[in-house]
Amino acid sequence: MFMRAQFLAGGLAALAFIGAGLAAAPAADTNTVEQWGLYEIALNGPTNGNPFVDVRLSAVFDDGGQRVEAPGFYDGGGVYRIRFMPDTPGCWQYETRANRWELAGKTGAFTATPPGPGNHGPVRVHNTYHFAYADGTPYVCIGTTIYNWLDTPESLQEETLRTLAAAPFNKARMLLTQQPAAYRKNFPPPLWPFAGTPPHDWDLTRFNPDYFRHYEQRLAQLRDLGIEADLILFNPYGKWGFEAMDPAGDERYVRYVVARFGAYRNVWWSLANEYDFLRTKTEADWDRLGALLQQCDPYAHLRSIHNGNLLYNHNQPWVTHASIQNGLAVESPASAELYRDVYRKPVVYDEVKYEGDGKYRWADLSGPEMVHRFWCGAIGGTYVGHGDYFTTMAEDTWTSFGGTMKGESTPRLAFLRKILAAGPAEGLDPIDKWNDPDTAGQAGRYYLTYFGRAQPTNWVFQLYKRDVVAGRRFQVEVIDTWNMTITPVATEFVTKKKDGYCFVDVQGRSVSLPGKPGMALRITAMGAATSPASSP
Amino acid sequence: MFMRAQFLAGGLAALAFIGAGLAAAPAADTNTVEQWGLYEIALNGPTNGNPFVDVRLSAVFDDGGQRVEAPGFYDGGGVYRIRFMPDTPGCWQYETRANRWELAGKTGAFTATPPGPGNHGPVRVHNTYHFAYADGTPYVCIGTTIYNWLDTPESLQEETLRTLAAAPFNKARMLLTQQPAAYRKNFPPPLWPFAGTPPHDWDLTRFNPDYFRHYEQRLAQLRDLGIEADLILFNPYGKWGFEAMDPAGDERYVRYVVARFGAYRNVWWSLANEYDFLRTKTEADWDRLGALLQQCDPYAHLRSIHNGNLLYNHNQPWVTHASIQNGLAVESPASAELYRDVYRKPVVYDEVKYEGDGKYRWADLSGPEMVHRFWCGAIGGTYVGHGDYFTTMAEDTWTSFGGTMKGESTPRLAFLRKILAAGPAEGLDPIDKWNDPDTAGQAGRYYLTYFGRAQPTNWVFQLYKRDVVAGRRFQVEVIDTWNMTITPVATEFVTKKKDGYCFVDVQGRSVSLPGKPGMALRITAMGAATSPASSP
Repeated sequence: MFMRAQFLAGGLAALAFIGAGLAAAPAADTNTVEQWGLYEIALNGPTNGNPFVDVRLSAVFDDGGQRVEAPGFYDGGGVYRIRFMPDTPGCWQYETRANRWELAGKTGAFTATPPGPGNHGPVRVHNTYHFAYADGTPYVCIGTTIYNWLDTPESLQEETLRTLAAAPFNKARMLLTQQPAAYRKNFPPPLWPFAGTPPHDWDLTRFNPDYFRHYEQRLAQLRDLGIEADLILFNPYGKWGFEAMDPAGDERYVRYVVARFGAYRNVWWSLANEYDFLRTKTEADWDRLGALLQQCDPYAHLRSIHNGNLLYNHNQPWVTHASIQNGLAVESPASAELYRDVYRKPVVYDEVKYEGDGKYRWADLSGPEMVHRFWCGAIGGTYVGHGDYFTTMAEDTWTSFGGTMKGESTPRLAFLRKILAAGPAEGLDPIDKWNDPDTAGQAGRYYLTYFGRAQPTNWVFQLYKRDVVAGRRFQVEVIDTWNMTITPVATEFVTKKKDGYCFVDVQGRSVSLPGKPGMALRITAMGAATSPASSP
Repeated sequence: MFMRAQFLAGGLAALAFIGAGLAAAPAADTNTVEQWGLYEIALNGPTNGNPFVDVRLSAVFDDGGQRVEAPGFYDGGGVYRIRFMPDTPGCWQYETRANRWELAGKTGAFTATPPGPGNHGPVRVHNTYHFAYADGTPYVCIGTTIYNWLDTPESLQEETLRTLAAAPFNKARMLLTQQPAAYRKNFPPPLWPFAGTPPHDWDLTRFNPDYFRHYEQRLAQLRDLGIEADLILFNPYGKWGFEAMDPAGDERYVRYVVARFGAYRNVWWSLANEYDFLRTKTEADWDRLGALLQQCDPYAHLRSIHNGNLLYNHNQPWVTHASIQNGLAVESPASAELYRDVYRKPVVYDEVKYEGDGKYRWADLSGPEMVHRFWCGAIGGTYVGHGDYFTTMAEDTWTSFGGTMKGESTPRLAFLRKILAAGPAEGLDPIDKWNDPDTAGQAGRYYLTYFGRAQPTNWVFQLYKRDVVAGRRFQVEVIDTWNMTITPVATEFVTKKKDGYCFVDVQGRSVSLPGKPGMALRITAMGAATSPASSP
């Protein structure tokens, strides 16, 4: 990804052109940016008063087909910026709007070029319960949690990036404002989001641009690693003052974050972590702030809110997908599936307890238990989030501060991701949800059956009737979710009607299984469009 | 229950006084009705035009503290009625309103007397997830389904009432408009809700008062048996014409039903059965009709809507409790509980498959499986509905047409009802929902643990810490949910802190169990307010 700046016609005091992509891009002279890349206008403007509060700035971008108004923001030092992520290729013109003459009425144009390799655009909801990039590429969500990784020494942040580069995770949950932790006694946050000094000597009407610039660097690095940044705007953990701003302060904060980060295509908005634990906000506050996120983000990034004990009403229109903390719900595909019916949106179990060494009940999963929950979620047609909470010093864990992971689940999640990525582009949906909850796929073409903790030694070939006809040939593979093997069954199966509900094999054949937990089957129609991946 | 009529002051053309209670009441001269009884005003009025459409009638009732406007209705033959259910004792005055002079401005008064035995008022939501009668008496919902029982020969209806009198069910789901069935070839419905003749020669602008009068008789009989009538206003099964009325027709129908039935305290409104299967209505129609139910019922009877495949948005304000079809959700307490968190309302699994002889997949539960689902629902803090679908002639089953039940679950549901009725008045709530989903109750006082299909031979005494202190004495009883026995454990248990989460017995004692499925434990604090019931 790269972006290209341009000189505007008209007597601007200053117009800066910033190449924001950290992945080096050729310094071409043409005024272009990739589709779904980040185009930026920089303007010099007033420094008097409080620019964060006093100045309103935006630009209307127009490609002849659509008009998009992108918000601007004050970046300190008299510099104002407007960022824009074009979602179609071609020529875009713009004109700025502002409540200050020196920032208003600036015009210009640039060309959005076709996306480069690895740039599939932002992730969108796809097929009701699933996700895909804007270019249609399926997005199989395998998330992890690294709440405070940006508040650590730079060397640890770099280590975190290296760990992520080698891991299967394509989403990371991370806080925007700090969480207190024992670890911070040795490593206080190098930067804070607001002007002033901790713990309470803040000017909450002024942001700290350095903090956000650093965050943006990391957002771009995650983007270049193919990782969606699930940004948590509010959290209940600290008593720094951020969490107790008045509605005007909250709105200013949301608008500032959206104006700065919204043009990064890999951004998701998670309005809060454990929203109901934040006693300084009411549910009506979350409704209002969620609607604000929806209204002020011109790119419609994915939006969610994550619960403590009390589920939010994810039927609210501003919520694009249900972000749920509930480990028990992914103890079986049957229960994982239940929330899909409620919300008719993708369900992401963003917290299902963490793999960890058992100091806390919410961080005591074994590797096999974590992997089991991911599989249950997947077969339930939902998505699960990972956490790794092996304490190496006081509260210093992957999930709190990044670094390295200690758990055993990660390679198995990579294996699961490969299987899901090789599955149907529509995602996994229940085939016969009230009768065979352990099977998901796309009827007639692709089935994934997960036996969970059961330890069968045999499986009689049988498929629910939907989209199945007699005489259809199927291949079956036996999957060991822990040992990461995929073993094709030599026999080919041919369907025959059994009764009013099911088809079986014409010769009544079955599949031998090893009688241990964590086994699955992949059943694919021979010659179907979705071909299974080979064993990794 | 009885009601008392009165002569109004003023020159009325006619004012009839009807004793509607079928349970014989003394014919006292005083103008009184029980609190939560049914008071009725009858007036003669116009017969020209179409009174069902042309005439609007109501009365405002005032006891000096509150004013309630109760809708009236046309009962045919020139007679108009206004029914009223007073919810407080004392003197009530009223005045009628109408768009016809001969019906408007009639005034009168009556006295609401304290409720008689067995009259606890209508059922309300209680403690967020549960129900209680208006007088505070807990209502433990154990429902059954008898869709078309009022369309059968009178002798069969009487048999149905006798069956209900001996059964544990205190709620019955029943249709208001007919469902086609093979059974009807021999036994066509004796009455239809609209004027005209089946299948299509209707005047849907005119109701058939005889149909509703008969229905009311049966409502009163159910009331006197302590059974709530969960009235289903719309269903997707027939193509009689009722299901394809325009919005004005639907509204007229809803208002007529509410005006006639609303003063029966044992009425619940189930807007539709399998609402999403009715292709002549959109979801917006249901939203509108649900809001209409809420608006036009002065008594705020319980309101719900029941799904086929697609869950309704039970977060809608008009919905008082989630009525859900999903048998799989009650396969474990852990999954049963999930919908509570979503809706923050009582969850009633009104259809979980029926106990039956297996002709259909939705009616193939064994007796133990039906009982298991009731227990899972109860421990999940929810309620489950029963059905009995043993085919004795074409489609003639308890659940379709009443009569007698053939299944084995009913006595076990009576046993469960007794246990729940003897439990905490607040109802059963999860104690430690993400870690011990098989235990519900009220922390510190009362616990019910259900082992489901597990077959433990031993249970080590352990309680989650909430509201438990060291040195507290507990009694444990072993419950066999199928054989309906409650066996006290001779040992008394005394709490001792185990770790940061749990208490165990000071001597580490445990409870022996018989190693078979369907076992439960009742654990009660010695001397607690809620004392366990003795074995029935």
